Amino acid sequence: MELYEKLTAQGEEVRGLKTAKAEKAEVDAAVQMLLKLKVDYKHTTGQDYKAGCPPSENAAITDNGPAADGEGGGDDTVDPWNVSTTNAKGVDYDKLIVRFGSSKIEKELVDRVEKVSGQKPHRFLRRGIFFSHRDMNQVLDAYEKQKSFYLYTGRGPSSEAMHVGHLIPFIFTKWLQDVFDIPLVIQLTDDEKYLWKDLSLEDCHRFAVENAKDIIACGFDVNKTFIFSDLEYMGASPDFYRNVVKIQKHVTFNQVKGIFGFTDSDCIGKISFPAIQAAPSFSNSFPQIFGGRKDVQCLIPCAIDQDPYFRMTRDVAPRIGYPKPALLHSTFFPALQGAQTKMSASDANTSIFLTDTPKQIKNKINKHAFSGGKDTVEEHRKHGGNADVDVSFMYLTFFLEDDEQLEKIKQDYTSGNLLTGELKKLLIETLQPMITQHQERRKQVTDETVKQFMTPRPLNFKI
Amino acid sequence: MELYEKLTAQGEEVRGLKTAKAEKAEVDAAVQMLLKLKVDYKHTTGQDYKAGCPPSENAAITDNGPAADGEGGGDDTVDPWNVSTTNAKGVDYDKLIVRFGSSKIEKELVDRVEKVSGQKPHRFLRRGIFFSHRDMNQVLDAYEKQKSFYLYTGRGPSSEAMHVGHLIPFIFTKWLQDVFDIPLVIQLTDDEKYLWKDLSLEDCHRFAVENAKDIIACGFDVNKTFIFSDLEYMGASPDFYRNVVKIQKHVTFNQVKGIFGFTDSDCIGKISFPAIQAAPSFSNSFPQIFGGRKDVQCLIPCAIDQDPYFRMTRDVAPRIGYPKPALLHSTFFPALQGAQTKMSASDANTSIFLTDTPKQIKNKINKHAFSGGKDTVEEHRKHGGNADVDVSFMYLTFFLEDDEQLEKIKQDYTSGNLLTGELKKLLIETLQPMITQHQERRKQVTDETVKQFMTPRPLNFKI
Repeated sequence: MELYEKLTAQGEEVRGLKTAKAEKAEVDAAVQMLLKLKVDYKHTTGQDYKAGCPPSENAAITDNGPAADGEGGGDDTVDPWNVSTTNAKGVDYDKLIVRFGSSKIEKELVDRVEKVSGQKPHRFLRRGIFFSHRDMNQVLDAYEKQKSFYLYTGRGPSSEAMHVGHLIPFIFTKWLQDVFDIPLVIQLTDDEKYLWKDLSLEDCHRFAVENAKDIIACGFDVNKTFIFSDLEYMGASPDFYRNVVKIQKHVTFNQVKGIFGFTDSDCIGKISFPAIQAAPSFSNSFPQIFGGRKDVQCLIPCAIDQDPYFRMTRDVAPRIGYPKPALLHSTFFPALQGAQTKMSASDANTSIFLTDTPKQIKNKINKHAFSGGKDTVEEHRKHGGNADVDVSFMYLTFFLEDDEQLEKIKQDYTSGNLLTGELKKLLIETLQPMITQHQERRKQVTDETVKQFMTPRPLNFKI
Repeated sequence: MELYEKLTAQGEEVRGLKTAKAEKAEVDAAVQMLLKLKVDYKHTTGQDYKAGCPPSENAAITDNGPAADGEGGGDDTVDPWNVSTTNAKGVDYDKLIVRFGSSKIEKELVDRVEKVSGQKPHRFLRRGIFFSHRDMNQVLDAYEKQKSFYLYTGRGPSSEAMHVGHLIPFIFTKWLQDVFDIPLVIQLTDDEKYLWKDLSLEDCHRFAVENAKDIIACGFDVNKTFIFSDLEYMGASPDFYRNVVKIQKHVTFNQVKGIFGFTDSDCIGKISFPAIQAAPSFSNSFPQIFGGRKDVQCLIPCAIDQDPYFRMTRDVAPRIGYPKPALLHSTFFPALQGAQTKMSASDANTSIFLTDTPKQIKNKINKHAFSGGKDTVEEHRKHGGNADVDVSFMYLTFFLEDDEQLEKIKQDYTSGNLLTGELKKLLIETLQPMITQHQERRKQVTDETVKQFMTPRPLNFKI
């Protein structure tokens, strides 16, 4: 209760400073203190602080996120280029929500998505894989009043090889496109990969086109989807460049230094790039789709490591007269070796690629997937396994559709009825047909199809 | 001679440090010392230091530049956004050459231009208005071997109003285009003006198109000239953007901080902009003209305040596999009030605009043009005027074609035969018809003509 009062007072101080247009440094310091108090509050009460609701009145919060232990996570690294934690359960996403200042996706919001869309929520929503958001309620409010929105997601094409983890935002985005019947733009940041990696422009662009094939294979509707490479689209759309310049005028080096950790030794391409990832958040970057309208709401489904780009975007938006994009944030897809890092295409042993054969998938899972099981069958039967740190179980959470089956697997594994080998077998049997089907769909994607998706053109969209 | 030996030793030290790949700071310090010694040497001997040529052997150097007093100039400010000096004769251009590390345009080079082009050198060359260069001899060497080159110049469209000073690079560039029969690209940096000024994108772009009309009125050949606005061309040419990104990858914030004086509070648009001014220096930014060739030599005529952009460009060029652009630098066009500042469109009283009526021209010159004459007619007749600080005489140096007439005016003014009012009358009679003719030519420039010049297209160019 004492903490609650401290928090309320601190909240008022921040508002006061902002109203009085105090120095940025002063406001920032007060906000930092507020965030710290919120973390302390969560630790002490197990609940999120809510203004006007003292702790006893708060509804108990059930946390379905993969890593809700409330401990550790203080050393988690999460930015667009690095994700790591010392916790085998993965990043502490609740702390991340506090640190990033986003909102948790509560059951209430999931229910609302169901009500508004008329569809059963995707398993990623049901299971807290998309766990955080910004302004999703506003998007739904407007949608209920017949004001539509568009989706924006993307990928940095650093190699030809995409792995199963890369599919997460696309699987979910396709579901959103289907249930809300809305247009989608997908940015391939080949320019970013050129700036950050030791790669040629030509390679980065080639990777973009190859990756587009895997993305198309996720089943997007060509009449509602525009996929673009920065290296192509920047040179094909004066309106896109105009938005980039507008954003670049309203963000200082100090700001990107604070948000992204850039230093004086970074190249000017990196320093200005965030504006390029921000620009698709504004509908008039795509006049061929939105006819020059600048007020169509954007919703961005992405992994939470991309949030810094969009915090910046949301900060700039009102200053250049555009609506702030809304966001839906996903957790990271764990590496085979454990949830301390995310799956990475640059390390073949941590990843299941979309090009892997059924045999490779089987071998990788059997050999590398970190197990939460006990050392011997006897011990496992006796004490049970730990599903919270078991990578095979985590992957099933992502890909097994049946909630009851998943829950039963968890119980059996935890009780010791299900052995690690058996759990891995279930995962293998889930992934093998999924990847094979993806490969078959990708084979159908011709160069002509890619060209169709990547040509700036009107989409089937009624505002 | 003692200085000469010091200089030779210092030169060797710099070379030694560079060969030994010493720390950048150490090399820079040694280079600074070398530059300082060169300035001292010039002061003491009146000659430029030349390795291997002790002072007594040096040919005497006649300096025709507008500001060759060898004194003052230490406090001159010259960068792309500010030009000022405390010296009424204007910036000390010899010191600028040392500071910028460019080369003086000696009579030898002027003679060579005459020989290679077969044309009498333009008065701007004969009179040291274009006074400094980088690699012009290489350009001429190659041209003599039938290897052609292209011209690149530009303008920052900060308002509709252009003044006579703005014409200098265009008058000279047109002459170069005519005598060498080569293609020309003209960049209008409307994005830059948006980033630097409190202007809307729409206004900046409109100014670009309006300025294009004045530029076209200088008489450029539409079959050999491509004029582009950044806001348009960036979004119309993937190849241009590719070069921008390539350059941006190879320049750090530290570098632009050193070159342009950017700070952490500057917006990321300013910080990355230098790459956009650099990109037209490379021929594959214009595949429609050069068919994708990246090795066509570029020559940039510009006022010397733009040199920082191209020092950066020349530093980057070899690292991305492109030839360094060559440069020809002009002096600044003085304000009516005196050569301490350059003419500026933002201060109407300092400028003669291309839209001024003959009467306005007459009044402005009579009222504002700083005079080097004496206070009374008697004193003037007795002691004579000072042409070196007289703005009317300076303007005649820019615009009066006849060398003998100009020399006679100088003698008469210096001797006291010519009064200030008479000198001003000569200038008025020179400028009035020049501006009127410009206005008539500009009237002929239709929107259709502008569109022709500004459409990306092949030019009449044989490599």
